[in-house]
Amino acid sequence: MWSKIVTRRVFFKVRFCSSLVPEEPEGPCVLTDVPGPCSRKLKKDLGKDQYTGEVTLFGNYQKSIGNYLVDADDNVLLDMFSQIATLPLGYNHPQLLKLFQDDKKLKTMINRPALGVFPGEDQPKRIHSLVSQIAPCLPKINLMMCGACANEQVFKNVFIAYQRKKRGQEGFTDEEKTTAVINQPPGAPNLCILSFCGGLHGRALGALASTHTKYIYKIDYPSLDWPIAYFPRYRYPLDENERENIEEDKKSLAHVEELFATYKKKETPVAGVIVEPIQGEGGNNEASALYFQELQKIIKRNNAYLVFNEIQTGGGSTGKFWCHEYFDLPVPPDAVTFSKKFAVAGYFHSDELTPDKPFRVFNTWMGDPGKVIILEAIIKVMREQDLLDNVLKVGARLKCGLVELEEEFCEIMDSVRGVGTFLAFNIANEELRDTVLHKLLRKGVVLGRCGESGLRLRPALIFQEHHADIFLDILRQVLKQCK
Amino acid sequence: MWSKIVTRRVFFKVRFCSSLVPEEPEGPCVLTDVPGPCSRKLKKDLGKDQYTGEVTLFGNYQKSIGNYLVDADDNVLLDMFSQIATLPLGYNHPQLLKLFQDDKKLKTMINRPALGVFPGEDQPKRIHSLVSQIAPCLPKINLMMCGACANEQVFKNVFIAYQRKKRGQEGFTDEEKTTAVINQPPGAPNLCILSFCGGLHGRALGALASTHTKYIYKIDYPSLDWPIAYFPRYRYPLDENERENIEEDKKSLAHVEELFATYKKKETPVAGVIVEPIQGEGGNNEASALYFQELQKIIKRNNAYLVFNEIQTGGGSTGKFWCHEYFDLPVPPDAVTFSKKFAVAGYFHSDELTPDKPFRVFNTWMGDPGKVIILEAIIKVMREQDLLDNVLKVGARLKCGLVELEEEFCEIMDSVRGVGTFLAFNIANEELRDTVLHKLLRKGVVLGRCGESGLRLRPALIFQEHHADIFLDILRQVLKQCK
Repeated sequence: MWSKIVTRRVFFKVRFCSSLVPEEPEGPCVLTDVPGPCSRKLKKDLGKDQYTGEVTLFGNYQKSIGNYLVDADDNVLLDMFSQIATLPLGYNHPQLLKLFQDDKKLKTMINRPALGVFPGEDQPKRIHSLVSQIAPCLPKINLMMCGACANEQVFKNVFIAYQRKKRGQEGFTDEEKTTAVINQPPGAPNLCILSFCGGLHGRALGALASTHTKYIYKIDYPSLDWPIAYFPRYRYPLDENERENIEEDKKSLAHVEELFATYKKKETPVAGVIVEPIQGEGGNNEASALYFQELQKIIKRNNAYLVFNEIQTGGGSTGKFWCHEYFDLPVPPDAVTFSKKFAVAGYFHSDELTPDKPFRVFNTWMGDPGKVIILEAIIKVMREQDLLDNVLKVGARLKCGLVELEEEFCEIMDSVRGVGTFLAFNIANEELRDTVLHKLLRKGVVLGRCGESGLRLRPALIFQEHHADIFLDILRQVLKQCK
Repeated sequence: MWSKIVTRRVFFKVRFCSSLVPEEPEGPCVLTDVPGPCSRKLKKDLGKDQYTGEVTLFGNYQKSIGNYLVDADDNVLLDMFSQIATLPLGYNHPQLLKLFQDDKKLKTMINRPALGVFPGEDQPKRIHSLVSQIAPCLPKINLMMCGACANEQVFKNVFIAYQRKKRGQEGFTDEEKTTAVINQPPGAPNLCILSFCGGLHGRALGALASTHTKYIYKIDYPSLDWPIAYFPRYRYPLDENERENIEEDKKSLAHVEELFATYKKKETPVAGVIVEPIQGEGGNNEASALYFQELQKIIKRNNAYLVFNEIQTGGGSTGKFWCHEYFDLPVPPDAVTFSKKFAVAGYFHSDELTPDKPFRVFNTWMGDPGKVIILEAIIKVMREQDLLDNVLKVGARLKCGLVELEEEFCEIMDSVRGVGTFLAFNIANEELRDTVLHKLLRKGVVLGRCGESGLRLRPALIFQEHHADIFLDILRQVLKQCK
C-alpha cells in the first residue's frame, strides 16, 4: 500500500526556497472578496452570451505565473486545483512561452491537418518519440481531443476486439452490416462496459453511461443498461483499518464477478472494464495494488479488457508517470486513456485492441499536432527538472502536514489519502466543506471539491515544498476558524 | 431551390488571376506516384506506433501554401478536400501565421484554463464579439472541442429542456436522483433523438446512434434504439425532376411524422431532431427550403427541438455563413452546431435550451481560447476579403463547369448538386468513382468521397476562379481517360 511511503510525521516550517518558475510571488495576496467585483461584473457580461452557472472567478492569464493564479481583481491565489488538474507546469512557464517562436513548430500548429488521413511528415518521429518516452508498456497510441472522447473511442477498440475474438476468421454477415446502420443487433450487438460507483469517465453519452458520481451530471438523459460495480471505500488511516479495507476489496471484487455473470445471463456480455487507478472527482478513492491485480484476473478470466482511465492520475501527480505503475500488474492493462495534463487526449493500447479495418475508430482531427508540441515540451521540462521526484518529495511533506492537521482537528477533518500530490481529505459534512473551501479561497488558496465532503489537492508538478508550507499554514488557520 | 442561382452554362478558360494567398504556385505539379515513396515510408514508420489504415499521404505543412498541399514527396496538390473541410483559409495563411507573435494572444493560448470555471478576463469580450458576428439568430453559445462532442452535448440541452417542459415547476424527485446515477428511468428517462438515413453526426456513442452512413463506422458497437427517418434523395437536374423531388420531400416528412407517433407509443418520445442542412459525407444530399420549413412545423407540433448540424456546412462554403439561412425558416432553429472550419467546436442555442443548473452540460476544458483566437482571425479575413462573395462566384463557375462535364460525360457522371463550393457529383459506380479519385490525385487534385459513388468538393474559402478552371480542366482529362 503506497501510503506507507509517508512515515515521518514532522511539520516543516516555511523556509526560503527558489521557485522552479522564475518570478513567482512569495505567497498569495487577496485584496477583495473572491470572486471580487471585477470577476462578478465579468460574469454578468459573459452571462449575456453563454450559460455561466459554473464560473467561480475570472483569471488574468497575462499576469498569472507558476503556481499563482492572478484573478481579474488582482488577487494572487496559490492554485492547487490547477484548472481541474490540467496544468503540469503552472502558468506562463518560460519553456512553453517560447515554444512557438520556432517557425517550424508554429507552422505545425497553425496548419492543423486531419491527422488520420493526411498527417504531417514530422508526425511519425513526433509520435515515436512520445511513445518511447511515456507509453505504459503498451505499443500503440491513438490521439483524441478530450478525455470523454478518449474513453468513448477506446470502448470501440474494446468492442471490436471482443467481437473479433468471438467471430474468429469470419467476416461480417450481411445482416450485421444492415443492422449496424440502423442501431440494431446483431450489427449493433448487446455488449457493455462495466464501470464503478464513484467513477467519472466523461460527459458524452457513452462515457456518461460509465460515470456514477453526482446525479446532476446525468439526470434527464437517456442512458445504457450497463453494469455498475461497487468500488472499495477505505477507512483511514490505512494501517489502522487493514482488515476492514481488505473486506472492502473483497466486496467490490465479488460484485464485479457477479455482474459479469448477470450480464452474461442477460445476453449483454461485459466486453471491457473502465476504472480510474484512484477515483478523482468521485472522492480520491483508492484501492490496493492487490485489488487491481485481482480485478485484472477476473477480467482476463471473462475474456474482457481492462482500461485504466488515467486522465486525472496520469502525467506525474502521483509521483509516477502512470498511477497504475504502483499496482505491479503481472501483465500490462489493455488500454490507458489520458487527457488533462497531456494538453492533448488519447490512449495507449495493446496490439490486440488495434482495429483491423480503416475508419472504425476515427474522426476528423484525430488529435492536434499543436497540442502534441506542447506535450513534448512538458515531458522535456519534467525530465530536466526531475519533476516526478519533486512530486514525491512535496507529496510526502503535504501528506505529513495534512496528517498532523487531521490529528489536531480530528472533529472536523479526517481521511487524508492519496499518493504523491494527488491527495485529498474529508471535512465533517458537505456544508462545512464548502465553508472551508470558500475560506481557503478568501485566504488565497484554490482547492477542488471531491466526493461528498472531500477536498482534493491537484497542484501542478512545479508545486514545491515552500508552497506546501504556505498551504498547510493557511489550512491550519481556516480549520481553527471552523473548529 | 438554390440550384437556380446557376443559370449561365459557360465554360471559362484558365486565365491569370492573382491569388488571395501570396506565393501560391501556378498549378499542381506531381513528380511521383501519389502516395509517393516518402509517404509510403513514413506510413510504415508511423504504423509501428499507431494504426494507420486511413492514411492517404503525408503532408509537408512547412511548404504547403494557400490551396496547395505539398506532400512529403514534394508533389504539389490542389487541395479541394481541405483536410475534410476544415481549412477555411488554406495553408500557411499569413494572417494566421502572425497571430501568436502578439504576446497577449500567445499567453492566452498557452495558459489554457478550464473555461467553464475559471475563464480569462478577456473571454466575455471575445465571446460577445463572436456571438455578435456569427450567431445564427440564436442568443447563446457553448464551446466544445470537436463536432461529435458538440452534437452530444447539445442533445443534453435538448433533453433538459424537454424534461423541464414536462416537469414544470416541480424539482427532481428523489427517485429520479437515485436512478439517474445508475442509468435507469425515471432519472435516465426513455427519450430519443430522431436522425436521418445518410446523416453523420460524429463517432462518440451518442452521436454515432444518430449517424447512418457506412456500416463500418458502427458495426460491433452497442447502440440506442433511436428513430431513423428517410431523407429525401433528389434526382438531378432539379428543374427536370421537380415533381419526383417533391414526392421525396413528402415521403421523408411522412416518415418523420410516423416515427414521432411510433416512439411516443413506445414511451420513448422524440425530444429533438438532428439534421444536416446538406448531408455531407452521406452524399451531399440536399432537401428544399420548403422541406425544412415543413420539418420544423412537425417538430414544433410535437414539442420537440430542431438541431441543425452545421459542422460541415457552416462557416461559409455554401456562400452563406450558415447553410440553413437558405431555408427562410419563419423562426430560428433551436440549436446549430459547428466545428471544422471554426477551429473550435460548439453550438449556438435558444434561451429555452439553456441549462437551469450548473454542471449539467460541462466538461474540463469547455473549448479552447487559443482556437477561439484563430476563429477570430478567420472571421476577420472572411470579412476583409469578402470570402462569402468569392465562394458564390467560384461556386457558380464550378457548378457550371461540372454541369458541362456531366453533359459531355453523361454515361459516367451525373447528379451535380450543392450550393456555393459545397458541391458534389456522382460517378457511375463505386469502383469507377475510386478510379477517378485516384487519377485526379495522380494529376494533382485532392477530392473527397461521399455517399455510394459520389465525389465531394470541399475547397477552402480562398479557392478562386483560376483554381476552379485548373480543376475542371484536369477533371475533363480524367473523365476522358475513364470514358
